[in-house]
Amino acid sequence: MRMLTQPLKGFRDFLPSEQRKRQYVISVLKKTFEQFGFEPLETPALEYEEVLMGKYGEEGDKLMYRFEDNGKRKVALRYDQTVPLARVIAQYGNELVFPFKRYQIQNVWRAENTQKGRYREFLQCDADIVGSTSPLADAEILSLVLEIYKNLKLDITIKINDRANFENLDKKIVSAIDKLEKVGESTVLSEMVKKGMAEDDAKLALRTLQEKQITENLKQILKYLEKMGQDVSKVKYEPTLARGLDYYTGIIFETVVEGSTGSICSGGRYDNLIGMFGNNQPAIGFGLGFDRTIELLEEKNLLPDSESSTKMLVTIFSEDLLNRSIEVVTLCDENNINCELYLDPAAKMEKQLKYADKKQIPYVVIIGEKEAQQNKVTLRNMKTREQKEVTKEELIQLLNR
Amino acid sequence: MRMLTQPLKGFRDFLPSEQRKRQYVISVLKKTFEQFGFEPLETPALEYEEVLMGKYGEEGDKLMYRFEDNGKRKVALRYDQTVPLARVIAQYGNELVFPFKRYQIQNVWRAENTQKGRYREFLQCDADIVGSTSPLADAEILSLVLEIYKNLKLDITIKINDRANFENLDKKIVSAIDKLEKVGESTVLSEMVKKGMAEDDAKLALRTLQEKQITENLKQILKYLEKMGQDVSKVKYEPTLARGLDYYTGIIFETVVEGSTGSICSGGRYDNLIGMFGNNQPAIGFGLGFDRTIELLEEKNLLPDSESSTKMLVTIFSEDLLNRSIEVVTLCDENNINCELYLDPAAKMEKQLKYADKKQIPYVVIIGEKEAQQNKVTLRNMKTREQKEVTKEELIQLLNR
Repeated sequence: MRMLTQPLKGFRDFLPSEQRKRQYVISVLKKTFEQFGFEPLETPALEYEEVLMGKYGEEGDKLMYRFEDNGKRKVALRYDQTVPLARVIAQYGNELVFPFKRYQIQNVWRAENTQKGRYREFLQCDADIVGSTSPLADAEILSLVLEIYKNLKLDITIKINDRANFENLDKKIVSAIDKLEKVGESTVLSEMVKKGMAEDDAKLALRTLQEKQITENLKQILKYLEKMGQDVSKVKYEPTLARGLDYYTGIIFETVVEGSTGSICSGGRYDNLIGMFGNNQPAIGFGLGFDRTIELLEEKNLLPDSESSTKMLVTIFSEDLLNRSIEVVTLCDENNINCELYLDPAAKMEKQLKYADKKQIPYVVIIGEKEAQQNKVTLRNMKTREQKEVTKEELIQLLNR
Repeated sequence: MRMLTQPLKGFRDFLPSEQRKRQYVISVLKKTFEQFGFEPLETPALEYEEVLMGKYGEEGDKLMYRFEDNGKRKVALRYDQTVPLARVIAQYGNELVFPFKRYQIQNVWRAENTQKGRYREFLQCDADIVGSTSPLADAEILSLVLEIYKNLKLDITIKINDRANFENLDKKIVSAIDKLEKVGESTVLSEMVKKGMAEDDAKLALRTLQEKQITENLKQILKYLEKMGQDVSKVKYEPTLARGLDYYTGIIFETVVEGSTGSICSGGRYDNLIGMFGNNQPAIGFGLGFDRTIELLEEKNLLPDSESSTKMLVTIFSEDLLNRSIEVVTLCDENNINCELYLDPAAKMEKQLKYADKKQIPYVVIIGEKEAQQNKVTLRNMKTREQKEVTKEELIQLLNR
């Protein structure tokens, strides 16, 4: 039986220990985006239904959260960040500066099947350049992906391909080939036959594709990327990489981590999509899988200790000595040391120490009768359990190290 | 006629220049919360309707966004952050460490009348301490409010009162008195009479309230606050301050700015509310009006220049000289200077300079034939329009200042 206090299926509460990790990754993302000159954008959680409907195929229309609001307007919850971007470009085209480089980090909602381990509310992190057809923009996007994962210390490979390689192939055939890595060659071939190709033709088509030389466009992008100081050995040409969506018009890419399946950051060039509300512009960008990225960082122990931001807890020995404790907190504040006062003067010392332990606060200060008389404090290292009496000046010096 | 590309009424797009300001205020809030040992919490945008319904009075039920999801569940969008906090305390009480000090910065949705200049999607910023009845906790909350606005450089006054002052007054009478500052004494008195009091009784009740001495509880809180190093002259006792909500049990407060009406940060102690889902705990906290705070900062010119995070734009003189430009960008990256490469090698120099101008990028570098031959660059200050030729080493030195 469901408890009233649980969140909805597919939705999550993020308690502080988890939320700290998320904030760490978000801060790395933001810092890297800004370093590359990308600017923040936010759009509403709710849009007119007609803005979103039909933009994500049948599947999207089915999974979208839609309803009628109190004013009988048909509305829908944000499903991705590309359609809202297109709407923004159409609405504010005159105010924006092109090439428009924006990043967007907001939740999206999809009524996914939660049995597959999918969430119904999850954070999307997108970066796109709108208004440049230059391979320089493509190179910058790849450079940004490499830099993000360099900053997160996660070892990745970017697989790239050019949609030009699929020029003469039917859409259905391309989506069969897209599964090559997942299901293997023989399954893909029988799928191609099922989609209407003669077996020999299917074999030839796949072979031809596998042997396709890298396009001039990709070569140029890689040349720029190398000039930008990036390690191009992390970027691999893969002529059968297809990406499901058919709106791509140039480079497409996926980001993989050895020993793990699926892409954690994918994108490509889409020069004909932004115009869906008018004001078409060429564009290139990517979406980063936030949850998958966090999972991998966690697996590989690459998240910083989710320690409290507090460096020291100042305990309260007794109501009478409370003022002494407050004085130490104020002194630390003045010296920019993150410290916290325990907030119940009646609590036993044991309970206060347990609080510091559970919150992973590294130091605790105790000011009892003796310490108060000598104008000193007892400093306890919560990891080593060592204690020593120090003057207030020594305390500040020790904590500032 | 509404354009398809506009956001819904009461909802907003935040373009980069606006979003930058918001991010600045959010970063000050987060920093101050963490400095005080408050920890981040996030809860889902959607909850079971039954979790939220009836928790905000008739008005709340009316303004709440509610609908049936694809699985026929009755759900509702987050309306505030206190009810979700109570749910979290009930659900994870055993995992959390008490006193639990959490902050929460997320959007809420209310189908408000937009004619009154209200938004239907807006950011709420809450901080609460759950699990302490000590006036120390109350003092810390006031100290946190003072510190936030000190860090934002906004001059504020906190008006405080104690709900104990209203002990013998009917709820309806209290809500009449709550409007005293807004509508004046005579209107309040006639309202009290309308609510069933004899005129003389109403006058006496109001006079008695106005003359109430500060309670011992408030005195103790202010004593602690002063010990904490805060300027208590910014805190004013106001015996007729009532606050609409009737769940408060101790101190109540509002934050005002001279020359501006209404409170920008309000809260109080509510010791009997958190238990609505079981596991009752005493609590004190506040909600900060994010939009009002930004408006005031803007009015008083206290927001940092919404300049681009990019310090320098590297222009492209010609396709042939593109590599020279990329080299300068790479050099700057290596020296941790935020710089941006213009992303269209075919664009005229004039267009590139305009881009820097519009994005408020302070410096531009040009590398033409002559500069390339001498292995120098031309550095242009976009404010003063001064230009000079410098070596790359000089460039780094100049930008690192």
